[in-house]
Amino acid sequence: MPKFQRVRASKVGLPPGTLVHIGDMRADKAYISVVQYDGDIFTETKGVLANDLTKLTVKSGVTWINVKGLNSTAVETIGQQYNIHPLVLEDILNTDQRPKLEDYGDYLCVIIKSLNMANGAVDYETEQVSLILGANYVISFLESLPEERDVFAGIYERIKSGRGKIRKLGADYLLYALIDSVVDHYFLVLEHLGEKIEMVEDQIVVQPRPEVLHELHVLKHDMLFMRKSVWPVRELISRLERGEAAHIEESTLIYLRDVYDHAIQVIETIEIYRDMLSGMMDIYLSSISNRMSEVMKMLTIISTIFIPLTFIAGVYGMNFANMPELAWEYGYPFIMSAMLGLALIMVRYFRQKRWL
Amino acid sequence: MPKFQRVRASKVGLPPGTLVHIGDMRADKAYISVVQYDGDIFTETKGVLANDLTKLTVKSGVTWINVKGLNSTAVETIGQQYNIHPLVLEDILNTDQRPKLEDYGDYLCVIIKSLNMANGAVDYETEQVSLILGANYVISFLESLPEERDVFAGIYERIKSGRGKIRKLGADYLLYALIDSVVDHYFLVLEHLGEKIEMVEDQIVVQPRPEVLHELHVLKHDMLFMRKSVWPVRELISRLERGEAAHIEESTLIYLRDVYDHAIQVIETIEIYRDMLSGMMDIYLSSISNRMSEVMKMLTIISTIFIPLTFIAGVYGMNFANMPELAWEYGYPFIMSAMLGLALIMVRYFRQKRWL
Amino acid sequence: MPKFQRVRASKVGLPPGTLVHIGDMRADKAYISVVQYDGDIFTETKGVLANDLTKLTVKSGVTWINVKGLNSTAVETIGQQYNIHPLVLEDILNTDQRPKLEDYGDYLCVIIKSLNMANGAVDYETEQVSLILGANYVISFLESLPEERDVFAGIYERIKSGRGKIRKLGADYLLYALIDSVVDHYFLVLEHLGEKIEMVEDQIVVQPRPEVLHELHVLKHDMLFMRKSVWPVRELISRLERGEAAHIEESTLIYLRDVYDHAIQVIETIEIYRDMLSGMMDIYLSSISNRMSEVMKMLTIISTIFIPLTFIAGVYGMNFANMPELAWEYGYPFIMSAMLGLALIMVRYFRQKRWL
Amino acid sequence: MPKFQRVRASKVGLPPGTLVHIGDMRADKAYISVVQYDGDIFTETKGVLANDLTKLTVKSGVTWINVKGLNSTAVETIGQQYNIHPLVLEDILNTDQRPKLEDYGDYLCVIIKSLNMANGAVDYETEQVSLILGANYVISFLESLPEERDVFAGIYERIKSGRGKIRKLGADYLLYALIDSVVDHYFLVLEHLGEKIEMVEDQIVVQPRPEVLHELHVLKHDMLFMRKSVWPVRELISRLERGEAAHIEESTLIYLRDVYDHAIQVIETIEIYRDMLSGMMDIYLSSISNRMSEVMKMLTIISTIFIPLTFIAGVYGMNFANMPELAWEYGYPFIMSAMLGLALIMVRYFRQKRWL
Amino acid sequence: MPKFQRVRASKVGLPPGTLVHIGDMRADKAYISVVQYDGDIFTETKGVLANDLTKLTVKSGVTWINVKGLNSTAVETIGQQYNIHPLVLEDILNTDQRPKLEDYGDYLCVIIKSLNMANGAVDYETEQVSLILGANYVISFLESLPEERDVFAGIYERIKSGRGKIRKLGADYLLYALIDSVVDHYFLVLEHLGEKIEMVEDQIVVQPRPEVLHELHVLKHDMLFMRKSVWPVRELISRLERGEAAHIEESTLIYLRDVYDHAIQVIETIEIYRDMLSGMMDIYLSSISNRMSEVMKMLTIISTIFIPLTFIAGVYGMNFANMPELAWEYGYPFIMSAMLGLALIMVRYFRQKRWL
Repeated sequence: MPKFQRVRASKVGLPPGTLVHIGDMRADKAYISVVQYDGDIFTETKGVLANDLTKLTVKSGVTWINVKGLNSTAVETIGQQYNIHPLVLEDILNTDQRPKLEDYGDYLCVIIKSLNMANGAVDYETEQVSLILGANYVISFLESLPEERDVFAGIYERIKSGRGKIRKLGADYLLYALIDSVVDHYFLVLEHLGEKIEMVEDQIVVQPRPEVLHELHVLKHDMLFMRKSVWPVRELISRLERGEAAHIEESTLIYLRDVYDHAIQVIETIEIYRDMLSGMMDIYLSSISNRMSEVMKMLTIISTIFIPLTFIAGVYGMNFANMPELAWEYGYPFIMSAMLGLALIMVRYFRQKRWL
Repeated sequence: MPKFQRVRASKVGLPPGTLVHIGDMRADKAYISVVQYDGDIFTETKGVLANDLTKLTVKSGVTWINVKGLNSTAVETIGQQYNIHPLVLEDILNTDQRPKLEDYGDYLCVIIKSLNMANGAVDYETEQVSLILGANYVISFLESLPEERDVFAGIYERIKSGRGKIRKLGADYLLYALIDSVVDHYFLVLEHLGEKIEMVEDQIVVQPRPEVLHELHVLKHDMLFMRKSVWPVRELISRLERGEAAHIEESTLIYLRDVYDHAIQVIETIEIYRDMLSGMMDIYLSSISNRMSEVMKMLTIISTIFIPLTFIAGVYGMNFANMPELAWEYGYPFIMSAMLGLALIMVRYFRQKRWL
Repeated sequence: MPKFQRVRASKVGLPPGTLVHIGDMRADKAYISVVQYDGDIFTETKGVLANDLTKLTVKSGVTWINVKGLNSTAVETIGQQYNIHPLVLEDILNTDQRPKLEDYGDYLCVIIKSLNMANGAVDYETEQVSLILGANYVISFLESLPEERDVFAGIYERIKSGRGKIRKLGADYLLYALIDSVVDHYFLVLEHLGEKIEMVEDQIVVQPRPEVLHELHVLKHDMLFMRKSVWPVRELISRLERGEAAHIEESTLIYLRDVYDHAIQVIETIEIYRDMLSGMMDIYLSSISNRMSEVMKMLTIISTIFIPLTFIAGVYGMNFANMPELAWEYGYPFIMSAMLGLALIMVRYFRQKRWL
Repeated sequence: MPKFQRVRASKVGLPPGTLVHIGDMRADKAYISVVQYDGDIFTETKGVLANDLTKLTVKSGVTWINVKGLNSTAVETIGQQYNIHPLVLEDILNTDQRPKLEDYGDYLCVIIKSLNMANGAVDYETEQVSLILGANYVISFLESLPEERDVFAGIYERIKSGRGKIRKLGADYLLYALIDSVVDHYFLVLEHLGEKIEMVEDQIVVQPRPEVLHELHVLKHDMLFMRKSVWPVRELISRLERGEAAHIEESTLIYLRDVYDHAIQVIETIEIYRDMLSGMMDIYLSSISNRMSEVMKMLTIISTIFIPLTFIAGVYGMNFANMPELAWEYGYPFIMSAMLGLALIMVRYFRQKRWL
Repeated sequence: MPKFQRVRASKVGLPPGTLVHIGDMRADKAYISVVQYDGDIFTETKGVLANDLTKLTVKSGVTWINVKGLNSTAVETIGQQYNIHPLVLEDILNTDQRPKLEDYGDYLCVIIKSLNMANGAVDYETEQVSLILGANYVISFLESLPEERDVFAGIYERIKSGRGKIRKLGADYLLYALIDSVVDHYFLVLEHLGEKIEMVEDQIVVQPRPEVLHELHVLKHDMLFMRKSVWPVRELISRLERGEAAHIEESTLIYLRDVYDHAIQVIETIEIYRDMLSGMMDIYLSSISNRMSEVMKMLTIISTIFIPLTFIAGVYGMNFANMPELAWEYGYPFIMSAMLGLALIMVRYFRQKRWL
């Protein structure tokens, strides 16, 4: 289960803009790759040093700087080269940031959470993705290490192969494509969780086991986490889509509206899953009640039939000197028949009450 | 139970506007019929090829192109002929789309979910309905196959017979009529579910069986699904009805307001049904508690009366050499009377406590 | 219990504006009475034919046309005479309409639900009330039959007797008075339900019976129904009160604000009753748990005391040849005392645990 | 418990503005006292007749007319003297009014509910307070009788003694002071209820008794009632504080903002108490479950240990002619040891399962 | 557990602006320290008297007056020197104030609640922090005593050491830094509570003890309290950040936006914790039900197997003269085998029902 609050205690008291990495994966160094393209050209430079970045940014075409591994020195150097506000750099390094959009006029800063199942993992991973959109460049910061397949691998391949119109459009379209890729990966995780939910649902209907309780709890937790991650993304894309942000051209708005619709769909599905999970909780509790009620009936029927009979047998086991029935010739079969009759009356009574 | 999230995984990583059909019913080919009418004329051409569509669209009167069966090639061809944006075509093919309205200036795109019980089915079916409104034409895309009676059959008959004023009004009125028909079919499904709910309600009051739990769960699921389908429709019609969309004339607004009222009524009824279902869940749980309490009382009364009596019988069954009572002449009847007295006191106590 | 969704299936597929009555009470004919008044004059014509209405409408003063019994022919004729839009007439006849206000410029259409207990009924009745406000006339449509006392009887008597200032004011004040009368009747029904709720509340506190469950369910249902009926009325009056509607003069706004306050009070009371009802459900469930817990304690105390004693008695009932205790002179009283001691220890233990 | 809906039935059908008192305390006569003051002067006239009021209102300084006891004749006379709209007078007399603010241009009408614990009562009392603010006068109407200490007693003393700046400011400040006094009394009642809640909370944690259920129910009821009374007051003060109302000078707005903050604090505390109460309900239900579970364990342990032992004793109590064990020399001690062993195994099993 | 409503009763009836301290910690005297700085200079004066403050405020640079210990005389003197409205002074002294922002033009008043764990406490402490921002000064009022480490200690050290840019910026930046420090401390408390929640969560999954119930209750209470404290802070910072308040320069807005994001993150985390806590409550209740169901099964299995066997043993313990089976040679082993057979059938039945 992902945690909701990482250790920020180490940062309390420091001035704002202090670049200390807060998060789980501390990278020793950042691995920077630069992709430059327009309709015709495609060049790629790997393992670039942070100091050399501005030299590489071309005037024409789009420059995409992909930074993998959050390292405070590298982030600071990049920040100086592109004149990025220290608060933004701080937000990039604090990976427990709430998804947000900040418009600084010269550049736009988008911070979102990506959920990823691409690495063949049994469960999804979460990382913070920070995007800086300048006039003709996009800088993306990822927590994941260079050797891992990241959420942007598909975009990279599309640019390289020249599929779609990404090569013909500007840096704002690249920003859209990156956000769209993150939102598309939400669907993958949702599907995975949806399958789990259906599996648990089937188990509850067939044979409710106590483990189901724990699984429901974990799934609820996952939904809370996803909602926390996705909800502000919707808000953020909505602000982008309204077209007030810097560097976003009007032709891109239609695509942003599309990804906005997807974000809403993700949120609606999360809400529905939450509804379903609490419904399943109710069903589970009812099943337990039902089974307990069944167990109690069993006990009651057996007890109610045999306790009076055992009493009668006890009576005739008493050692009183003067108990005339004991001497009767047919006392024993008579009493046995009386007991049988009593048992039958009981059974009939339970049938009437629909307990049997 | 309808699923909430279809498999989109195959699409992740593809550029936006890639036309891949996502959904359950993949049609081998699209079956296109064209209806053209004005106050006087009514012509109908069946089995039209996608390439011939623009030739058929007349200047005067309204052209209604009804496409049954979603086939990506056909949709692409139609899109090219009418200059429709690739994102719209993608939305038409992805049948897990959230209902939405997009105004592209030249044309309007409306995507809604229809719920249909018309095919004599025991349960309702859902399909995505996409509508394109141009200057004097409406294109409707349906998932259902040509041989099935679709939700627009009534509209077709009204146009053919010239009933109502549909023949005298423009393409925007046709759009309204198609949306109205979809919303009217919601009422049919709601009625069907309403009857089911009342049936389950009666069962719960009379004799709650464990199966009721499952039925309640399925009905709740249905309500979640309907709410997901209908809620955005309300929003969408509201935007249409405010009169800002292209090609919608003012005389049609009054009708849109009417269908908006119907959509709200559907939503209100869904909410009320949801409220009723959770109320019924409570009633069901209470009934189980009630019955269990009754069972427990039965057990307690029988046990509490007979356990002490059995103990007494046990005492006089002991084999001590020196037990003077055993030798008394009237020991046996005396002890039996004492037991009866004890039982009567117990019964009286239970009566006082209102357990009997 | 009132139903939430009447059978509309018969209407699906018909063009909008088709006048088919949907509802429970189908009237064979409409009974129309016309009241005309100003400060000085009061005339009343009963049993008017729908065709003669326009002749009767006077220039000066206010004309109130009260139509009792919904008959589609009559409604259509009236509609033609006063130039009313077919959609409005359709709404008047469909008595499962959501309360609404439509401003057609020439006239205003108000549709609300009245709840009525006036006919000495044990339970309230609901009917749809449709009001048309023109320049100097009000047409009211009621479902109830002429021989029944309707919700407008008080208004009629006020006009006739000249009490209040209704005779001095215009048709818009009459509209207000009619709406006010409907809202006033909501209070009557609320009071009735409030008394029922208090009765059930008292029963729950004193002695919870299983029937209470059903009564709570019915009351919850009633509240859902009332909320559905009254909520849109608030909205509707609010729009009237903002003074944008046709034919509403400013001097009437102050009265509309008053009835708006009443509508809010009705809604607040409904919400409070709903809160109380779910609180009572909780109390009821807790009482059952409490009583069950009490029953269980009883059983446990009796069993825990007597089961060990019975075991001891059983031991000394064994027929072993060599059981020295059996031969002791004071074996019997000794064992009996030991049993008593054990029972007392048990009782003390239960006292300590506060079970006794 | 206060009731939510008083008997309005007697008013249904009467024209608006009909002055009939609806409420619990019907006063035989109104007791009117007039206080007039400015920075220098303070005069007080007690037992004034309603007809003489206008003569008493001075041009300079502030006149405060305090009417105790709602008597329809007196209210009507005052209304005529100060030209107050009949609807306002009706609202003053109907003491089940929703708190509201009406701006009639010439004067302002504020109706609120006061909650009062000042009369040494064990529980709080509620009364309707109506305030009319004119150019240089305030009329206050109270339900309470002259001999009771009312919520305005503190204000009267402040004016008399000249403490604070009330004597230097206008009638609008007096209105503020009166509202502030009502809101301050809410805190007293809240504190009283808060103490009750904490008492019940302690009881639930220590030893949950069934009576707690009833106390929780009453407290929930109280909270519903307070919310109903206070919620509209917030709204009302907010409207006053926005400075659009007649006769409210700008210098008073800052004080109104202060009382607005207090009203919000009251509402927040009510919501928190409601949250706490439902949390306590859960705790209570869990405690019952817990105790029942404990009771059941007790029963199960005793039964599970002794039922098999009793069976064994029963076996050796059988009277078969040929039971070799019975004749064994050490049969009795052997069987007793076997029983002890079985009991020990059982105890160990329960320890393992952590039931002991 | 912190209380939600402190004793205000002593203040009811006093005129607004009366300076009476309401709160837990009454300070005998206030301890005032003055820090003055700009880019170059840093001077600090400790133990200043309230009367000497204005003399100390410099024209250039920023003056920070930190008042520790709320003493009404000191607060009044400071208020007179800086011309602060009596209502503000009253709010500073009433430490049960709702967090708020008041803009008086000349100065800005911010009142917030700080939550502090810095004093090595096992649990967090709450105090009211009041901030006055003037043209070039900030006055901060703290409830804590001079010897305690307060929430502003970090800011003081940053100014002293000249770290960050606080020395180069104005009084508005100091205000931001102080608010930021308070919000940062919220994270510390949240982390502490988050760890507690996880500990309780683990316990519930492993072995639910009844004490868990109480811990959940206390944590819920804490969350209610934090929400009450933090929610208005969000609102307040939002108003500051919109840039309408006096003395706030535009360059500071970007920092306020940052602290606004933090406040939202705190609130979101609180809401998630609340969600988790009620989820844990459900899990706990289900576990109890589960265990009770297990206990009941145990009892039922043992009883259902042995009660019939005991009955059979009882039958052959009867003393009838004529019981032929008793005389049979192999009667005893036969009956014992029959009993064993019956027990095995029972066990098999329970296995089939999956109770074993």
